[in-house]
Amino acid sequence: MSVRGNVFLPHIHKYMQTLRQFREEFEAVVHAYCAPRTPSGLYDPVGYILQLGGKRIRPMLCLSGYLFGRDEVTESLWRAALALEVFHNFSLVHDDIMDQAPLRRGRPTVHESWNVPTAILSGDVMLIDVYRLLSQAASTEQLPIVLDRFHRTAIGVCEGQQLDMDFEEMDEVNWEDYLRMIRGKTAILLGGALEIGALLGGVPEEKAAVLARVGEDLGMSFQLMDDWLDVFGDPEKTGKLKGGDILRGKKTALVHQAMAICGEADRRQLREWYQHDRSERAEADAETIVDIFETSGARESVQTEAKAYHREAIRQLDGLAIEEGSGRACLEGLMRELQGRES
Amino acid sequence: MSVRGNVFLPHIHKYMQTLRQFREEFEAVVHAYCAPRTPSGLYDPVGYILQLGGKRIRPMLCLSGYLFGRDEVTESLWRAALALEVFHNFSLVHDDIMDQAPLRRGRPTVHESWNVPTAILSGDVMLIDVYRLLSQAASTEQLPIVLDRFHRTAIGVCEGQQLDMDFEEMDEVNWEDYLRMIRGKTAILLGGALEIGALLGGVPEEKAAVLARVGEDLGMSFQLMDDWLDVFGDPEKTGKLKGGDILRGKKTALVHQAMAICGEADRRQLREWYQHDRSERAEADAETIVDIFETSGARESVQTEAKAYHREAIRQLDGLAIEEGSGRACLEGLMRELQGRES
Repeated sequence: MSVRGNVFLPHIHKYMQTLRQFREEFEAVVHAYCAPRTPSGLYDPVGYILQLGGKRIRPMLCLSGYLFGRDEVTESLWRAALALEVFHNFSLVHDDIMDQAPLRRGRPTVHESWNVPTAILSGDVMLIDVYRLLSQAASTEQLPIVLDRFHRTAIGVCEGQQLDMDFEEMDEVNWEDYLRMIRGKTAILLGGALEIGALLGGVPEEKAAVLARVGEDLGMSFQLMDDWLDVFGDPEKTGKLKGGDILRGKKTALVHQAMAICGEADRRQLREWYQHDRSERAEADAETIVDIFETSGARESVQTEAKAYHREAIRQLDGLAIEEGSGRACLEGLMRELQGRES
Repeated sequence: MSVRGNVFLPHIHKYMQTLRQFREEFEAVVHAYCAPRTPSGLYDPVGYILQLGGKRIRPMLCLSGYLFGRDEVTESLWRAALALEVFHNFSLVHDDIMDQAPLRRGRPTVHESWNVPTAILSGDVMLIDVYRLLSQAASTEQLPIVLDRFHRTAIGVCEGQQLDMDFEEMDEVNWEDYLRMIRGKTAILLGGALEIGALLGGVPEEKAAVLARVGEDLGMSFQLMDDWLDVFGDPEKTGKLKGGDILRGKKTALVHQAMAICGEADRRQLREWYQHDRSERAEADAETIVDIFETSGARESVQTEAKAYHREAIRQLDGLAIEEGSGRACLEGLMRELQGRES
């Protein structure tokens, strides 16, 4: 059974119940985690960023993975799910400094609300606490492999961020390199969340590794759509400035695709807009860039590529010889949700 | 037997041999760790900061702790010693951004040589790698307790740095709060290095905890002397700008002591100099501040306090019912070295 068509309503129903309940309980876990601590200058920003909301995709992937091996959620899963969300938020806090981003989920970023030193240090304390949460989530036997998988994930995220910064300074980046960058920056963590959940749930290592690949492909699809939604999504739903990536001169999937397929005149215009030392980009002129994304076919092409990754995730999941269970139902429902998302 | 007097030459001899050899081998371990990796923008700064030198105190404390339980050094100890040095350097890279420090060990800091985003991200990757090294250093049975002790250490370091930043914005900080801050910022890591080494070497938990306190007291003494050497040390040996803390308006132990014991006129002058929003401090006027440190008795008082912590470390070590061994010889030699240090 796959997530295509409408043939699996009972699955969806079960998943929706499980996920809705999980989301509510997870918010309570986050809330408890964010109780005031001293020194407040260090911990207030942690509570702030974690309670800005967000889709909690990584905790839900962790839950799905876990339910591939277990029938019900235990304390250990909550800690791991929290660890993954804290890690994700740590990376947001530090990335936002590096990208000089003013807004996150429609609110001021941590370094804007406080300052850069605070954002650095609060991010550090979050990263350190991720390992405490993971250590508490895993049994003594599970801990070495969980840490090993988490390490690969975390290093991948840093390397992806570095490539992202490197690419911003380059005039041209080929499509394959761009995909490698978003694999690190986004996809690896989604794969890691699913895999670590599965390992904690007792899923055998080889099968957990397949789930990691499923999560990565979902992540690729997710990131491509993220770039797409920045320009073509509804800002009321994304909570971001519409076309913010264009105004900041950020070279997203749309730019790289357009560069690869557009005509010479458009390419010249794109190059000029995205010159890395260009200091000002007028809002009025951004429309020209949006037009190039449309007319060159990049808009459609990026969406098509995102769908292809999504299909690949489904294909791998279908090939996974594992009993049907609530894990699979959750994951398929989550995939459906991600595919149809508008934010 | 204690480190007072000259009665333990055989000990010193053994320690010097062990330590000299360890230092050489440790540099080779660091060198191998710093082999070029891609993306170079991420890993070059890691190699840069780790190879700026430094006294390698934390690895040596880790070694000493280990030798309280074992007769010889194994691969596991090297990894832990490296983990502690990488962690220390991670904290230097991030602290230098926060403190806007231009120099570290007489060379440009990472954010000066590269830029702030690079310094943030390279620091992050170092912190992540610390956990890989620790995971590889510990056996499956040792790992949970090693991670627990390391967690307390790492959180303590972040909290200490936060207090340090908080205190910079306050007009007065009492001496006890100042001591609490340096305990976090510096002493806890020295204690943690000794304790983690001991745990990996098989020293029972209670005795490892005593060693942690010994290391902390050494760390207190070390940090007080660090503040002292910034003003009264030889810049050729410290590799730092003489009186750099004074010019940057950094409220060190000398400032807090002077504030506590000097007369009203001097206190007014200190307050004015250390106003946190004061933008310029002239080098010529710094001499007045040095004079206040001298005449108020702060110079002597800080040195006396440093010595008291050192004595307390010795007292606790003397009370530790553990067989004499090379661990004790190393530690005593190291303590002697720290006590007599000029940089």
